[in-house]
Amino acid sequence: MRKLLLLGASGNIGCQSLDIVAKNPSLFELVGISVGNNVKVVPSIVERFPSISSVCVKNEEDVSDLKTLFPQLTFYHGNDGLLSLISESNADMVENALVGFVGLEPSLATLRMNKILCLANKESLVVGGELINKILSSGLGTLYPIDSEHVALAKCLSKCKREDVKRLIITGSGGAFRNLSRKECSAVTPEAALKHPTWNMGPKITIDCATMMNKGFEVIEAFYLFNFPLNQIDIVLHDESMVHSAVELNDGTFIADVGVPDMHGPISYALFEGQLPFEVQKGKSLEDFGSFHFRTFTPDRYPAVRICLDSLKNGGTAPAVLNAANEVAVNAFLQGKIPFLKIEKICCFVLSRIPNIMTPSLRQILTADSYARILAERYISEVNSHA
Amino acid sequence: MRKLLLLGASGNIGCQSLDIVAKNPSLFELVGISVGNNVKVVPSIVERFPSISSVCVKNEEDVSDLKTLFPQLTFYHGNDGLLSLISESNADMVENALVGFVGLEPSLATLRMNKILCLANKESLVVGGELINKILSSGLGTLYPIDSEHVALAKCLSKCKREDVKRLIITGSGGAFRNLSRKECSAVTPEAALKHPTWNMGPKITIDCATMMNKGFEVIEAFYLFNFPLNQIDIVLHDESMVHSAVELNDGTFIADVGVPDMHGPISYALFEGQLPFEVQKGKSLEDFGSFHFRTFTPDRYPAVRICLDSLKNGGTAPAVLNAANEVAVNAFLQGKIPFLKIEKICCFVLSRIPNIMTPSLRQILTADSYARILAERYISEVNSHA
Repeated sequence: MRKLLLLGASGNIGCQSLDIVAKNPSLFELVGISVGNNVKVVPSIVERFPSISSVCVKNEEDVSDLKTLFPQLTFYHGNDGLLSLISESNADMVENALVGFVGLEPSLATLRMNKILCLANKESLVVGGELINKILSSGLGTLYPIDSEHVALAKCLSKCKREDVKRLIITGSGGAFRNLSRKECSAVTPEAALKHPTWNMGPKITIDCATMMNKGFEVIEAFYLFNFPLNQIDIVLHDESMVHSAVELNDGTFIADVGVPDMHGPISYALFEGQLPFEVQKGKSLEDFGSFHFRTFTPDRYPAVRICLDSLKNGGTAPAVLNAANEVAVNAFLQGKIPFLKIEKICCFVLSRIPNIMTPSLRQILTADSYARILAERYISEVNSHA
Repeated sequence: MRKLLLLGASGNIGCQSLDIVAKNPSLFELVGISVGNNVKVVPSIVERFPSISSVCVKNEEDVSDLKTLFPQLTFYHGNDGLLSLISESNADMVENALVGFVGLEPSLATLRMNKILCLANKESLVVGGELINKILSSGLGTLYPIDSEHVALAKCLSKCKREDVKRLIITGSGGAFRNLSRKECSAVTPEAALKHPTWNMGPKITIDCATMMNKGFEVIEAFYLFNFPLNQIDIVLHDESMVHSAVELNDGTFIADVGVPDMHGPISYALFEGQLPFEVQKGKSLEDFGSFHFRTFTPDRYPAVRICLDSLKNGGTAPAVLNAANEVAVNAFLQGKIPFLKIEKICCFVLSRIPNIMTPSLRQILTADSYARILAERYISEVNSHA
């Protein structure tokens, strides 16, 4: 029986995680959640899971109303509240389903306290991969990825020897605009960008899929999770998102993880710590491969991937700067402040203006993140004031 | 360094095997060959491989001429000669690339003498699977398959635990007439049947591909080689023959062996005893899956497969009877004596007329084989005398 903290319980991954926890009451005891701004969901979650004793929200002003409703619960607020929630709870497993840079510190805190981290927050690894691996290699904590591609790779890699691996293959759908040229992407709307062809996900990651920044981040994640050199990690375009990822071996065999696109499987894989009977996505077989499409990845069509890989090669704070600029830019695009193709431009601009710091401390990453956000915001407001 | 005997050196598999042996002189010393009727190839092979000391041919009358040419060599003839070649040689590895029932006794002799058997002769397992497994389970001999499907399955199965396997998937192209209906198959010629869409092989197996009797035999082979129940062995139609076979696991992953259709890979896998660096067929990647086609197997279109599986379920001498009837019928079709669809009819007729003997001895299998051939020949001559 695992005592579980769920960070980001009101989001897309959080809601699906709650379903899995509810289905397996003998395996998981949900002891705490965080919900960000979305405080209206707290009553229903607390009633559904009476084992919850702690709740973290984003804003302090929401706490007193909740405290009146649920005097038996402990409430926290803000980013520091997330860290207190982790350190003061008796959980032995933390699922981090937060969105964006805010997930980094909770991830580090979870591992430092030698807890199991089920990680849906890919930004933790993108901006803090070195820090995370340093903690893990010191013997503290255990990490299970939740991204479907990395769960797929973990499953495939568990079936072969490292030295037999020719390359890791991360599949990508190509996002909402995969059938448009770059020129045709110049006038696309946020509404159109939010229509992912195969996956139903939150808004931030769906936009990151449309630029394929998400796929670049996933290469960085894979790099830190599985410790293969970049030239052994490839992206392959795959329209149907049925092959979640694959490993190619030197002996001419492929190991591929196959199933319908549904995050219940990957979440369950992480919560079950990689052991069956985690939930397996059914209904797809080799016969179904007949209608699967795979195409060579086209880097010119998706420059965000090259920006990501360059930032990883440069190392240091570069991935953190890129991630911050991207978060600001995606948000601005969603608010209708900038056109779609400006997202990459803002990332390049910000990356070019911030000096890189190698082997950064957490504080240096936090500073780089803040500075990058300021520059990105300034760029956007200047563009808009000129418009 | 393995001392190797190559049975069937002049056939399709035999010639490719000689190439592999020639390419790896530090690994293999070819000490003997058999060539059947094809005695004209003996001089060139003996000159290419001076290590050869023994040669077996089919007919006694060919021996004296050869003996004059190569007085330093020992010559054998006939089926008994094959067994003497094996027992009197100092080979530690025998590749059996004979075609048809004649391969059974050499396979059994090889294993009984505790040698390594590289088995391209699938009939050995089809008619004598029980006998072969009995010898292997007594601790004598080692068997490596050469059929591309079974090499693929062996490679895939080496990467997973038996209890994790959901099913073995044997891929099949559907043969020369895969785009014809059964009705359209009634008037096809031997020349048309010999045009396999993806593989370049000998005539017997190419006709067996057109009926898909070959695929049924491969299910029987897989049953004996890997010891999975029949309901865990499936056939999937795959037009391009690039996925040589696959294993589906309970956790939603697939392990597939992929490469261009070329027997050098599977032969090399067996000769290298499953260890890299055996030759890997290059040039195909996940990107290429985009043009691969997979379809559900249609048993009504290919009744030969059901005949095979029924004979395996009935057990005893039934597979030997089926194999004998099929050999006679395929030969008659190749000689223009019977139409294509009569091959299955003859198999069913002969199977229905010969009483089954369970757990047969080698002698009982030999008798069943002979009797089945007599019945099949008689059926054919009666059909032709009525015509």
